[in-house]
Amino acid sequence: MQLVNAEIIVIGDELLYGQIMDTNSHWISQELDLMGVKVVRKTTVGDNRTDILAAFEAAEKRAHLILITGGLGPTQDDLTKPLLAEYFGCEIIEFPEAVAAVTEFFRKRGREMTQLNILQGHLPSCCTYVPNEVGTAPGMWFEREGTYWMSMPGVPHEMKKLMKDFVLPKLSGIFNLPVIYHKVVKTVGIGESWLADLIKDWENSLPDHIRLAYLPSLGHVKLRLTAFGTDKNELYQQVESQISKVIPLIDKYIYGYDDESLESAIGKLLKNAGKTLALAESCSGGYVSHLVTTVPGSSDYFQGSVVPYHNQFKENILGVKSETLASFGAVSEQTAMEMAEGVRRIFGSDFGLASTGIAGPDGGSEEKPVGTVWIACAGEGFLETRKLQLTQDRMLNIQLTGVSVLNLLRICFNQNNK
Amino acid sequence: MQLVNAEIIVIGDELLYGQIMDTNSHWISQELDLMGVKVVRKTTVGDNRTDILAAFEAAEKRAHLILITGGLGPTQDDLTKPLLAEYFGCEIIEFPEAVAAVTEFFRKRGREMTQLNILQGHLPSCCTYVPNEVGTAPGMWFEREGTYWMSMPGVPHEMKKLMKDFVLPKLSGIFNLPVIYHKVVKTVGIGESWLADLIKDWENSLPDHIRLAYLPSLGHVKLRLTAFGTDKNELYQQVESQISKVIPLIDKYIYGYDDESLESAIGKLLKNAGKTLALAESCSGGYVSHLVTTVPGSSDYFQGSVVPYHNQFKENILGVKSETLASFGAVSEQTAMEMAEGVRRIFGSDFGLASTGIAGPDGGSEEKPVGTVWIACAGEGFLETRKLQLTQDRMLNIQLTGVSVLNLLRICFNQNNK
Repeated sequence: MQLVNAEIIVIGDELLYGQIMDTNSHWISQELDLMGVKVVRKTTVGDNRTDILAAFEAAEKRAHLILITGGLGPTQDDLTKPLLAEYFGCEIIEFPEAVAAVTEFFRKRGREMTQLNILQGHLPSCCTYVPNEVGTAPGMWFEREGTYWMSMPGVPHEMKKLMKDFVLPKLSGIFNLPVIYHKVVKTVGIGESWLADLIKDWENSLPDHIRLAYLPSLGHVKLRLTAFGTDKNELYQQVESQISKVIPLIDKYIYGYDDESLESAIGKLLKNAGKTLALAESCSGGYVSHLVTTVPGSSDYFQGSVVPYHNQFKENILGVKSETLASFGAVSEQTAMEMAEGVRRIFGSDFGLASTGIAGPDGGSEEKPVGTVWIACAGEGFLETRKLQLTQDRMLNIQLTGVSVLNLLRICFNQNNK
Repeated sequence: MQLVNAEIIVIGDELLYGQIMDTNSHWISQELDLMGVKVVRKTTVGDNRTDILAAFEAAEKRAHLILITGGLGPTQDDLTKPLLAEYFGCEIIEFPEAVAAVTEFFRKRGREMTQLNILQGHLPSCCTYVPNEVGTAPGMWFEREGTYWMSMPGVPHEMKKLMKDFVLPKLSGIFNLPVIYHKVVKTVGIGESWLADLIKDWENSLPDHIRLAYLPSLGHVKLRLTAFGTDKNELYQQVESQISKVIPLIDKYIYGYDDESLESAIGKLLKNAGKTLALAESCSGGYVSHLVTTVPGSSDYFQGSVVPYHNQFKENILGVKSETLASFGAVSEQTAMEMAEGVRRIFGSDFGLASTGIAGPDGGSEEKPVGTVWIACAGEGFLETRKLQLTQDRMLNIQLTGVSVLNLLRICFNQNNK
């Protein structure tokens, strides 16, 4: 087993001046951590020859693996490629395969190609060309005296695809990596400190070679177990055995494991049961529909949705009674219930979900301040509601409503389909 | 005028291992940029003596201002304070004022204090103590041979308060700051290299003190102009004059400036003209509605939307003719047109937008492969359509469709409301 040190070099003035936030290096850190590669440093430098070359030189002294993002656009301010050529002492030459790929990229999209684009297929002669299927700047792989280098575009989805398709699979062939087994337990509807309190005895009893991390995100908390050892199968069994002990303590908050998202977990529940879903989204404004439809195959159970952003559409399209709106207001339990029932009727679905509320920053009142949201879930023989009192900005209020709506569906499904 | 170079040093294993994302350095960059202080490097190192000291030493050689976040907790793995004392060659001593502040912090919150907390009031004798009113780890300010240092906790709201209350106000007293003026031109519907090709003569004619950067993101390209000088008003005029020269070259792609998003730019167009909007989203599944409703005040112009995920709802709710669906299919120009007209009719809106397509990964055919999307925009006396041939994964296909739908609305609005 080998201790592999990695460094990440992020290139671009826009990152130093705060115009773009670097999310790439965080994602790369997570992926390398999962493989047992240790990131020891991240350096961000601008579009500047001296600084970039100094960063290359310093990193080569310390790291076995150097991952570079950014500075690969076709325009004049992008320096990474010529400086890599200079650093490794080789010429930039035409890679016919790379020129063909960029040409094909434009042909497929029916877009015209400029001379600048063709030059994206010209690379340092000492690199290995790594095709970028989702963009025009190729990846470049270099090796020198036990240090491995990869240069990738700064566009996150292009970088991620190059990492997943090329870099990550390559690492175990190069390095003798430690054996690590991870498993993530995904929970929703409970805060980090409450969760920690429920499982503290179990956490304290974990053996030294199994580490627990709490990874909170909007409305969710992930529990990540990481086991270190020499035998993958053994680690797998040990982790699974620990998980079987923690499940009974937090059963009702768990929606899935590892890469499962809440929306895909719900998709599986519905698909396996042959049930369907429709949505009436007022304050969530289409966000829940978006989440549901990001899941491949969601057309199997998702019927559709209505976003009735004004009262007359809640009446005309969803059939909410005008007396309900007049007596209780649009943001009320009664309206949420009638919206959920209405959308279920229109789409003939098994489940109807609804949200109505005040996302902010305007529209609040003494009685119903910004962040007041009612959500409802209707189905055969049941109608559940929840009131949320959110305190964030508009975007976060919308996102938290989305998580709560999906979680209410999960709860209703489990109560009524067991 | 002085060119002030700043470096940011971020300390913490959790940032290298991907457990926490560093948002601090992005915020600091933005604040310094506004004051004309240039961040020339960001370095993230772990809780490790050698790496932290090396980062201090390297930064001191390059920068006039060094901002350090993290590594200030009360526990043993937090090394920033002892290493700053070591680096500056002074002892850690009790600062009675700092001990009193941390004691008061706990008293106020009715929480018990440990010996470790008391030690948070012990600081390097050579630093200036900077009170942290919202946390327990004080700020520490150092000066040596023209370089100024500030160490702050990694908790974002504590760091921000120390920056706003102490560091930022101090800078103009220390440095004779340059004047910088930025302006960002935001474009949509054209790729980076096409854009560069259209404006290359203008770009080459820019004076040396005005720099141009291309900042591409999904479907968008931002052009950032940065001018350096001594007189803000003069720079403003010079940048505005350059922008007035580039506008005619790329007029039809520009939707806004600086922090404007496409959805908020469209919101302003609609609001100012007193026009309204409704959406029929099949393949975009609610994503465009979500974008539109993230804008505060969108209820002024957004009427609502329908996501008809199956053919019968395109017929029943939107009134698409069954012959249209039978003859041309759901993914066709004809269906997109009838959806746009249908949703405009239902919501009584000025504009009706529609999307229908195959987001993938399944559902493609020889004739209509994954990524085939038709979008339409209907209004009084016009009906525009576009065909997209996308090649990304499901999520990106949805997002690119969303950008294209909003851009089509922008184009139709400009053609029909001038």
